[in-house]
Amino acid sequence: MAQMVRIIEVGPRDGLQNEKLTVPTGLKARFVALLAEAGLQEIEATSFVSPKWVPQLGDAAELWAQLPAGTLFSALVPNLKGLERALECGVDRIAVFTAASDAFTHKNINMSIEESLAVFGEILTVFRSARPSGWARGYVSTAFECPYAGRIDPEATAGVVGRLAALGVDEVSIGDTIGAAAPKEVRALHEVLGVEPSKVAWHFHDTRGTAVANVAQAIELGYRAFDASAGGLGGCPYAPGAGGNLATEDLVYFLERSGIATGIDQHRLARASLEVLRHLGREPRSKAQSAILASCE
Amino acid sequence: MAQMVRIIEVGPRDGLQNEKLTVPTGLKARFVALLAEAGLQEIEATSFVSPKWVPQLGDAAELWAQLPAGTLFSALVPNLKGLERALECGVDRIAVFTAASDAFTHKNINMSIEESLAVFGEILTVFRSARPSGWARGYVSTAFECPYAGRIDPEATAGVVGRLAALGVDEVSIGDTIGAAAPKEVRALHEVLGVEPSKVAWHFHDTRGTAVANVAQAIELGYRAFDASAGGLGGCPYAPGAGGNLATEDLVYFLERSGIATGIDQHRLARASLEVLRHLGREPRSKAQSAILASCE
Repeated sequence: MAQMVRIIEVGPRDGLQNEKLTVPTGLKARFVALLAEAGLQEIEATSFVSPKWVPQLGDAAELWAQLPAGTLFSALVPNLKGLERALECGVDRIAVFTAASDAFTHKNINMSIEESLAVFGEILTVFRSARPSGWARGYVSTAFECPYAGRIDPEATAGVVGRLAALGVDEVSIGDTIGAAAPKEVRALHEVLGVEPSKVAWHFHDTRGTAVANVAQAIELGYRAFDASAGGLGGCPYAPGAGGNLATEDLVYFLERSGIATGIDQHRLARASLEVLRHLGREPRSKAQSAILASCE
Repeated sequence: MAQMVRIIEVGPRDGLQNEKLTVPTGLKARFVALLAEAGLQEIEATSFVSPKWVPQLGDAAELWAQLPAGTLFSALVPNLKGLERALECGVDRIAVFTAASDAFTHKNINMSIEESLAVFGEILTVFRSARPSGWARGYVSTAFECPYAGRIDPEATAGVVGRLAALGVDEVSIGDTIGAAAPKEVRALHEVLGVEPSKVAWHFHDTRGTAVANVAQAIELGYRAFDASAGGLGGCPYAPGAGGNLATEDLVYFLERSGIATGIDQHRLARASLEVLRHLGREPRSKAQSAILASCE
């Protein structure tokens, strides 16, 4: 049981928010349902962001109404207005989003880190009062490197992680937004983090092929929660050259082959994103997914 | 200096031998020259295999005559006839090839492991007498899993590695031919290997996204030599569903980001395989390569 790992599937939100094409709500709902059927237990389904900012996720309320029972669904809420909409839909698991780099938060959410933390404080207060047994996570993006500010000092990232934890989130998701980090940097950040591993999830991107190695390192250090995106969907529109999120298929293959049971059906998972990928005109970016699909055909 | 890592580029041989299209000799020579210019110091350039078996490498002698000076080039020699041709060309670094699975050697080289080792004994005797200061490596393929026989017992692999070492090769290259292994298996094999790390190179494939994690594990265990293929070229024709070799770009990015200097120019490396990939009608399969090329354009 000490080896059990949580996987937080972020494909429907993080994977789709930056695509040029918008995925129809019905197709999103099928995607989420297939992910749940494959065995994923935690799925970040959408974001209650303004449709003006991110039209790709403008159907958050409609999608939420179509989600199947039996899975833990969460939604990103960027501000009080988004929280209000989310609460109206019955959302009881939320995520808020900041970064370790001011240059990044300015470009991405048009606030300083400080301002974003102030907003989160308000969001969390309202959320806790509306959903006393709800769950909230905070993202810390560009934890290792920022496309605008370059390398980020581990102490700076640890500071933001600590601030978010102090605000009372249940979990901090630490993100390598441009997929630049090597395991050594995960160790370096771990050494200065003042938050216990059980309150941390890692959100690696596989832009340069290091994500699985970073997961392996984090597991060795005692961490047990990882974000991933089916089919390797995703990337960041504000991060030039950024490729996909760590693919859920690659994460699950690595875990299962390492003797860590995930409860996920790898063949179902490999197929779950195919219709969305086809709609977006994209090839699967997951190596394990490609290998599994090749061996099935 | 203890951190210095050797990279053995195998793209021109392992990367091209299974492609349907044959790459013209002049293009191969340009590819090799670009790899050398990018800073690769050891390149397995071709195989003196029978052109009947592997027509893609039927131009070994012609290619060898076009290789630039200043780089350590080696060639695979499958038998005494191949060695004879290689020696005529002036080759002084050779590689021989067997596997940890009899089922694999039978399908791949039409011999049992024992028979292949007997042949290598003869090859090495002739080679040492012709090139007293020459260098020879032995490949042990399917070291973790065989597409026909399934998982391979680490003891079985260690046995073949030990036999090759006893034959007097300078280095054994241990191959995850179908790209299935997780770091845990690298540890397990390490624990039963009777050969010192300085005599071992690891030849990982990235079929399921675990190759970089396996390199990270091997480095932690004290190994310092890794095979890789520029652009992720390669795979195995006898291994159904097998994708590419570990891409040299992904390996170099990982090493450099980990603070291990390679002396390789990552931008030159990212471009070195482009003409060959275009000729073969393939997209780059290396994540780091794709990221570097995207950021250049």
